[in-house]
Order: sequence, then C-alpha cells, then structure tokens
Amino acid sequence: RTVGNLRVREGSPFKIAIFADLHFGEDTWTDWGPGQDVNSVNVMSAVLDAETPDFVVYLGDVVTANNIAIQNASLFWDKAISPTRDRGIPWATLFGNHDDASFVWPLDWLSSSGIPPLRCPAASDDDGCTFRGTTRVELIQEEIKSSNALSYSMISPKELWPSVSNYVLLVESSDHSKPPVALLYFLDSGGGSYPEVISNAQVEWFKTKSNTLNPYLRIPELIFWHIPSKAYKKVAPRLWITKPCVGSINKEKVVAQEAENGMMRVLENRSSVKAVFVGHNHGLDWCCPYKDKLWLCFARHTGYGGYGNWPRGSRILEISEMPFRIKTWIRMEDGSVHSEVNLTYD
Amino acid sequence: RTVGNLRVREGSPFKIAIFADLHFGEDTWTDWGPGQDVNSVNVMSAVLDAETPDFVVYLGDVVTANNIAIQNASLFWDKAISPTRDRGIPWATLFGNHDDASFVWPLDWLSSSGIPPLRCPAASDDDGCTFRGTTRVELIQEEIKSSNALSYSMISPKELWPSVSNYVLLVESSDHSKPPVALLYFLDSGGGSYPEVISNAQVEWFKTKSNTLNPYLRIPELIFWHIPSKAYKKVAPRLWITKPCVGSINKEKVVAQEAENGMMRVLENRSSVKAVFVGHNHGLDWCCPYKDKLWLCFARHTGYGGYGNWPRGSRILEISEMPFRIKTWIRMEDGSVHSEVNLTYD
Repeated sequence: RTVGNLRVREGSPFKIAIFADLHFGEDTWTDWGPGQDVNSVNVMSAVLDAETPDFVVYLGDVVTANNIAIQNASLFWDKAISPTRDRGIPWATLFGNHDDASFVWPLDWLSSSGIPPLRCPAASDDDGCTFRGTTRVELIQEEIKSSNALSYSMISPKELWPSVSNYVLLVESSDHSKPPVALLYFLDSGGGSYPEVISNAQVEWFKTKSNTLNPYLRIPELIFWHIPSKAYKKVAPRLWITKPCVGSINKEKVVAQEAENGMMRVLENRSSVKAVFVGHNHGLDWCCPYKDKLWLCFARHTGYGGYGNWPRGSRILEISEMPFRIKTWIRMEDGSVHSEVNLTYD
Repeated sequence: RTVGNLRVREGSPFKIAIFADLHFGEDTWTDWGPGQDVNSVNVMSAVLDAETPDFVVYLGDVVTANNIAIQNASLFWDKAISPTRDRGIPWATLFGNHDDASFVWPLDWLSSSGIPPLRCPAASDDDGCTFRGTTRVELIQEEIKSSNALSYSMISPKELWPSVSNYVLLVESSDHSKPPVALLYFLDSGGGSYPEVISNAQVEWFKTKSNTLNPYLRIPELIFWHIPSKAYKKVAPRLWITKPCVGSINKEKVVAQEAENGMMRVLENRSSVKAVFVGHNHGLDWCCPYKDKLWLCFARHTGYGGYGNWPRGSRILEISEMPFRIKTWIRMEDGSVHSEVNLTYD
C-alpha cells in the first residue's frame, strides 16, 4: 500500500495510542532483562484496554539491538507488537536509533566468564548463527509476515536508502462523501546503522508526497518520527513546564538529530501540519507550540527498557470530525490521565 | 583442514611474506580511493617478484569495511588477494579490526549532495542491496571459494565465536623422515563487530592445539595476529631503535588490545614459541626481544590504504632447516632491504 485506508468509525473520534521507546530484548541473558519486557507488555495492555484506540503507532526504539547478540531481533520486535495484534488493533512502526544498532559485546564475555548461554540454536546453519544484526528491511518484512494484515508499516523506496520507515497513511472520514480527516506521515530519523539525520532525500520525498496528496493544504497532517529536531531545543521549557507548553516531566535536555536538512522549514511552511510527535528523550513528555504554526510534542516513555525510571505511559491522539479537532493527553500505566491539550486552535 | 600441509622445498629455506594493513576499498566513490588499491597491488607485486616467497600471510585490515557501503567487501578482499593468487603462491589470512567494521556514513551523504553513485546494482534483489556489512565468516567463505585451492585460511569452531580466524598450519620438512620445521598459529585479535581482544576461549584453544601438536616443544612455533598485546608496550624502544631491538621506524605509540586474557603468559612459558608478528600500528616495524624468551615483531605497513604515509614494504620470514634458523628482514616497495634479525639464537 502506498497510502493506507484507515477510516474513522461512525459517530466516534479516531483514537491513536503512541508506544515510544519500548526497548525490548535487553540483557536477555539476565533475569531482569526479560522481566522488563513483561512489564512493558503490561503497560501496553493497560493503555490499550483503558483507551481502546483505533490505531497504534510504535514510535521507534522498539528493540535495543545493540544488546541482541545473534540474529533474532525480530523475535523481540514481535513480542513488542503482540499486545496490539492480539487485540486486533492495526498499527504502524517506524525506526529509532537502537532498532538496527550493531551488537555491543560486553568485554567480560571474552574473559573466562565466557559467553552466557545464548548459544546458537543447534538447528541454525553456519551462516545463520554467526553473529549478524537484523537490518531495518528485515525487521519490517518479518513484522508484516506475522501481522495478520494488521500492520500498516511500509518500506520506503530504495531512493531513500539507508532510511527505510518513510510512508504516509490516510485517515478517511466515516462519511464516504467527505474529504479525508487526516494524513499521518511516518519518517525514519536514522541512527544505528547510519547517522541520526532526516536526509535531504527524505525532505524531498515529503514535499512530493504532501503536494500530491494534499495540494491545497485542506487535510490536517500529523508527523511522526523518533529523534527530535533542533527546533525542539528552541521551544523546550527552561525548568517548569508552563503555558503554552503542556506536559508533566521536563527532566533532561533535548537530544536532537546530528544534522538537519530542512525538514522543519518545510513543515512550518505548511499550514496543514498540526503537530510532530517524537520519542528518544525518555524524560520529556511535553508539547510546545512552534512559531505559532504547529505543535512539537514528545510521546511518553512506554517501555521498561531503556534508560530512566519515570512512570510509564502512552501519548494518546484523538481526531474528531465534527467539529474537527485534534486532542492529545497522556494515559499512564496506572490508569491516570494528564497533560491534555488541544492541538487545533480552530 | 585442521592442520595445513605446507612443505619446505628441497635445498631452499621456506620463505613467508607478510602483507599487513592493506586497507582496500577506501573511498571507492572518489578517484584517490581506488588509486590507493592500485598502488597497494604494486607494492605486493614488487615484493612477491623480488622475494618469490613460498607462502604469504595477510595480517589483518585487508579491507576498510567501515568505508564500504553495500555488501561487497569480498570484492575488495579478492583484489587484495589477487597478486598472490595470480602467481600461484598459497596464502593464509587473519582478521584485523577493520575487516568487518560497520559502515560509517559520511553525514554529507544525507544532505543535498546525496549518496555518490554507488547505487545498488540493478540486478541485486531487495535484500541484497539493502545496506548490510559482510561478516567475518562470509569473507573467509568467499575467499576460499575463489582461491583455486591456494587459500589455507580456515574458520575456527563456533566455540571460539565471535572470533573466526583461529587455526594452525604445519610446515613439514623437505625430508619426509624428519619432524616438521615449524608450526604457524593464526589468531583473531578481534575488533570491528566485537571488542579488540583475544578471548579466554582462544587462549584455551591455543593451549589445547599446541599441546596436541607439539607436546614436547620440539617444533618451533610462530604466532600471527593483528593487534599488539600490552607486552609490546613494555619492550617498545623509547625513541631511537637500538639493540637488541631491530627496525627502521618507531613513529608512534603501541596501540594495544582493549583487554588481555592470558595469551602472552601462555606464549612466554612455551620455549618453542620463537616470535609473534602483529600489524595495526602502521608507524612501527621493529622486533624486540621479550623477557629473553621470544621476539615481539611488527610487520611493515604494506598498503596505501589506512593512515600514515611511511614508505611501504613487507616483513619477510625465512625458515632454514639445516642448520635450523629463522631470519627476518623487511623488503621495501623500492626493492631495498633492511632490519635483518635472526629470531633463533641457537
């Protein structure tokens, strides 16, 4: 599919849950490693059961590939997808900087303590077992294979290589005669096997796609990627999160992409772009307006993997048709809700 | 083959040429990159034609994989092997820290200048073309496949994983009734996809192998790997290279392995071990005695790839039978010879 065909259900807003920075697959040779993933599944289950969203976005760093020794990152990717798939909820994934990072060997594995028992499965042939990471393309291919057709993830054209998770989904109105309700753009902000950058080629791709699908800027556009742009630094609250920003934790500095190739300039000049959603910073969950044109939002750290021990949750987006409105809030693992903000002024 | 069957030719010593740090495959998208490899072929050809060795050892960093964008490191590995193979000379290779390093993307490739024309060959299927490095195992498998049975390289047992180039070759006497002339041990000193370390498992492997093949320490043993051990730092000449050390350039500090797991202790307690040969430091080519037990030698930087612009050459080893003696010198690209030293005192 080049353009998805999601559709708003009659009489109810279209709700998206964002799962950010799950970091599955950490330290599988320990007890606490796998325990993290069990806890992360619980967070997702609690959010999915409390919110019953129409769609889920996995906002990158689904797995910590630099911790996965042999070629089975798809095994952990699948575990992260399972709560959503098991509930028959469609989803889309995009890549963060950890998803295809090369394995980083603990030095003591090469000492007398040796490699913990993650020995290659006997059945695997010589090649399969030799250390080798799982590429971005393989992760999406495996995801789609075992998705019961619920995955809307796509592999972008080779011209955008090495970035892979670049695609757009259309949310159609419940009323077939009405124009689409929203366009969801997913981009690969790099990292792991290549620099943490949205490339010039991706910017050109977005310009072409958006001009084709939304030439008169009538359809509201929401943008998803993993690593914040430098623009986030400009809007970041100093200490306390005060209006117009809305959020609950401002515990660290924005960690932005290594270089920029004009993506934010393109977005700020498109009146149809309402908000950008990123992950990466586990200690930030705020939304701040950018040049009175669009919102720059962080998701909420969802996984028990990855750094930081702030309570886990998920940023929820709700797109209503009549009157048109995009609202967002954060649903916590414990069921509480906070940081509600209206992303469309009209 | 677990043990090679090299044999000394009647009436002439057994001569080995060591090619170290060739660094093929650098910046192939420029003019000077490929030009380097042409120059490196010239160095090897000059040495091979001047010395006509019986055997060649490729001492690691054959390719600069961190500069090779798509999965064709074997293409450059093969170019490095070609001068030797074309002359029908058998060889063995071992890995350095660059041979399976992950590709490091130049940031500006993601800017508007874009990726230089190394586009994926049209024929390659989706998977083949997606960025992916070439693993250590694939490099040796491909080498052996296109070696006209002249490659003595071997893939070590999976128990030594992630290290791969660990094996031993026997040099038999020209006189079938006589014991072997030498044992050549090749080890993988890591780096690239895993830390720069000779693991405990490799040390145990060496102990088992050497006790099996040479229980009474009667056969002289020569050891080859890429990254120097910390012991090299202890024997390194301060400034000028003075006796008992022998060499011609002492231009940088020894860059040693990240950690040690007892390899040097095992070697120094085996009277049959005569010398260790390493590369890695392009600005060092000396041999120094270590605790009056064995010699610690650097090879000579052979390639035009890699850092440093010191004149290129190759360390030559000559093993004579009657009387038994191991001599070494350095043959330069320009034909000159220097730094001759006798590695066996008797």
